[in-house]
Amino acid sequence: MKKEVEKYDFKIIKRIRIRIHDIPGAFGKVALGLGKYGGMLGDITKVDLTSQHITRDLIMFFDNQKQFEETKAALEKIKKCKILSVEDEVLNIHKSGKIEVTPTVRMDNLSDLRMIYTPGVAQVCNYIFENPEKVRDLTSIGNSICIATNGSAILGLGDIGVHAGMPVMEGKSVILHKMAGVSCTPILIDSNNADRIVDTLEAISKTFSMIMIEDIKAPLCFEVERMLQKRLPIPVFHDDQHGTATVVLAALIIALQMLSKEKEKVSVVISGAGAAGIATCRMLLEYGFKEIVVCDSAGAIHEKRKEKMNIHKESLAKITNKKMEQGSLKEVIKNKDIFIGVSAANLVSKDMVRSMNKEPIILALANPMPEIMPHDALDAGAAFAKDGRTVNNCLVFPGLIRGTLDARASKITYPMKFAAAEAIAGLARKHEGVPNFMNLSIHKSVAKKVKHAALKQNDITP
Amino acid sequence: MKKEVEKYDFKIIKRIRIRIHDIPGAFGKVALGLGKYGGMLGDITKVDLTSQHITRDLIMFFDNQKQFEETKAALEKIKKCKILSVEDEVLNIHKSGKIEVTPTVRMDNLSDLRMIYTPGVAQVCNYIFENPEKVRDLTSIGNSICIATNGSAILGLGDIGVHAGMPVMEGKSVILHKMAGVSCTPILIDSNNADRIVDTLEAISKTFSMIMIEDIKAPLCFEVERMLQKRLPIPVFHDDQHGTATVVLAALIIALQMLSKEKEKVSVVISGAGAAGIATCRMLLEYGFKEIVVCDSAGAIHEKRKEKMNIHKESLAKITNKKMEQGSLKEVIKNKDIFIGVSAANLVSKDMVRSMNKEPIILALANPMPEIMPHDALDAGAAFAKDGRTVNNCLVFPGLIRGTLDARASKITYPMKFAAAEAIAGLARKHEGVPNFMNLSIHKSVAKKVKHAALKQNDITP
Repeated sequence: MKKEVEKYDFKIIKRIRIRIHDIPGAFGKVALGLGKYGGMLGDITKVDLTSQHITRDLIMFFDNQKQFEETKAALEKIKKCKILSVEDEVLNIHKSGKIEVTPTVRMDNLSDLRMIYTPGVAQVCNYIFENPEKVRDLTSIGNSICIATNGSAILGLGDIGVHAGMPVMEGKSVILHKMAGVSCTPILIDSNNADRIVDTLEAISKTFSMIMIEDIKAPLCFEVERMLQKRLPIPVFHDDQHGTATVVLAALIIALQMLSKEKEKVSVVISGAGAAGIATCRMLLEYGFKEIVVCDSAGAIHEKRKEKMNIHKESLAKITNKKMEQGSLKEVIKNKDIFIGVSAANLVSKDMVRSMNKEPIILALANPMPEIMPHDALDAGAAFAKDGRTVNNCLVFPGLIRGTLDARASKITYPMKFAAAEAIAGLARKHEGVPNFMNLSIHKSVAKKVKHAALKQNDITP
Repeated sequence: MKKEVEKYDFKIIKRIRIRIHDIPGAFGKVALGLGKYGGMLGDITKVDLTSQHITRDLIMFFDNQKQFEETKAALEKIKKCKILSVEDEVLNIHKSGKIEVTPTVRMDNLSDLRMIYTPGVAQVCNYIFENPEKVRDLTSIGNSICIATNGSAILGLGDIGVHAGMPVMEGKSVILHKMAGVSCTPILIDSNNADRIVDTLEAISKTFSMIMIEDIKAPLCFEVERMLQKRLPIPVFHDDQHGTATVVLAALIIALQMLSKEKEKVSVVISGAGAAGIATCRMLLEYGFKEIVVCDSAGAIHEKRKEKMNIHKESLAKITNKKMEQGSLKEVIKNKDIFIGVSAANLVSKDMVRSMNKEPIILALANPMPEIMPHDALDAGAAFAKDGRTVNNCLVFPGLIRGTLDARASKITYPMKFAAAEAIAGLARKHEGVPNFMNLSIHKSVAKKVKHAALKQNDITP
């Protein structure tokens, strides 16, 4: 239950309202004070102006509470600068939530109403009754997905429950709409029972064209995904698994190309045997990687290991670690070409990176703090090192979902995920490293390739 | 299954694109032709203009297919008027549906993203985990309701299934947003089993602040409503029952005031013992009406009747028809003051109205065709006669739901519904008859009174 929450200082974001003299240089002094302890300055907005004074709102990003307190104290010492209020900007933004269901049609007069509601709407109901295949065209269903969680594995926060997890679901819904024009409805299911979750989602599934399950803890998430996809004619997608696996694959394609290495010849160690670790391992094998060892807190997973195993790790043991490597991550990472971390903060030291093969590739994706900071990995000789801030699901899921909906595919297959990874990698060549997911054209390009891959495999629902 | 669909001609709405000479009087000829067979002209939009011709889109409302064909033929005969295309405007408007989930926050840059998603969002998750009562303030849940149907009683169309019923759910969602700023998510549950429906809605209930069940056939709807409200700490509302009952009450308050009659002294006959009829009967008794007889297709319901009874009618029999009236609607309507129809088209003749007491009140609300047309009822001596076009749930549910959410009430009680009816009646005094539900101030006023009534009864969730 929420074990790890207190471990990290999350970024603190404040809206600081100040009043200063409206004379040249006055704000310069303030800005210097603000920067003194490492806080970062964001938006600066004018709130009010009188003949003598100007009131401004400053958005400030702090690493921790101490930095905020020190900066505030520094600001208080500046002459003729008065702090009027300090608000928590993140809480501010979240007031009343981040999404709502809105009309896409006009309803300005009675004639509009009579078309979208009785009596006119009856005609559309009849039309769909007689032409069931038209339901995606004549309702919002064709562009609607649901994002379902039971709140059991919210971000790095653990089992904090469905209500506390809602802001994450809403955030993802915002991203999906902004990046890919998808209508995404959060559904909170307050249960840890796989049958209950699956029965519920099956019962409401006709409302949507895809079901995304989100932040459900392993191994429950595997069970839910498997059972649900078996029962439903629409795609079931668990981003924590497949989104992560796809973005890892994209980053590896980029890195291997940069270093002129071949996927069949490199050795990989994956730290973490949860949802993301298992899915990543399976996808890399499917894509053509040959040599993979997966480690968890009990060390390398292999066929003869008895402690801390489960059916998922047992099946991993059968397809990985052919050389039967044993021991801790520290031992297993030696002489590997690639490290993929989907585990926990600070598990990898610089010495461990030095013990790898020449020019290693490091993807340290633990959230919110990586297994090793990318600059430390580069310091220790890594040729390519990224953390979750750039190698992020956000690069994958908007385009992957858009493309799947556009193709009306009945599931998301490996060829579709490979198409997404290759599209991302293809765009990266022009830039350095991994593309920036704020760039809308990335998602359009991913969507197009995914749609194409889906249509090619002839796996289309009406 | 969809028995009644073919009985009625629903309004047909067409978008007719014509090209005519751009000279004075040319459109006049067209407009005369359009009106010849009774079609109504709506929006007229200019599409294109060249030096000689003007192209216009005309929205036309027809009562039936024949009227449309005749009008089209008349249009074709007009010289120098060319019909370029004819589209079904209702289907046009429904393309891609009528609602979507949209962001209410900005996401223009990485700094925005880091507040609404990782890492910033974790702070809000933690805050809600530690202050669970804040979930309605910091997520969309506080303003969200779901509208759940199993598609078994869609409008007057019957059991056409969830997909064909979706346009109605979306329509209601549009109305709720436009009239009352409520975010309303349709949920389609493909089952006729009360336990399955209730279990499903219970499982997802934490996503919403209210559950509205819609167009579920009787008696299933009673069972679902009762079981669900028993299990949930949020309001469960069945508009087909309580919205209808409330608007009937509002109309009766208006009519009785106009005619200076008292609710305790008038006699009422209700035609229809389905969801709306039963709920209306119960509400009128609760409000203070004394003499009510309910009729269904087997005639007056009374304690000794055996045919076509069920537990709901049996409980009605115990509280109505004290005089043990028997026989058909035609017999029972005699010497009554008020007729309320929530049954089927054309069940009441002018002679039946004439057989009632002096200055009778007629609410003929069968959808889409009333038990008797209001002008026929007035002809036959009614002092007040309305059908479902004016005495419509749309007058009630936006304000009732808004007020309930604003009060954070845990259920919708009779005092709240009475407050809604009295608010509507109060606004009517200034107009004639029933207020127009396109008027936003109606819904604001209803919401305010409902909120006040809810807070007064001390029945508030945190």
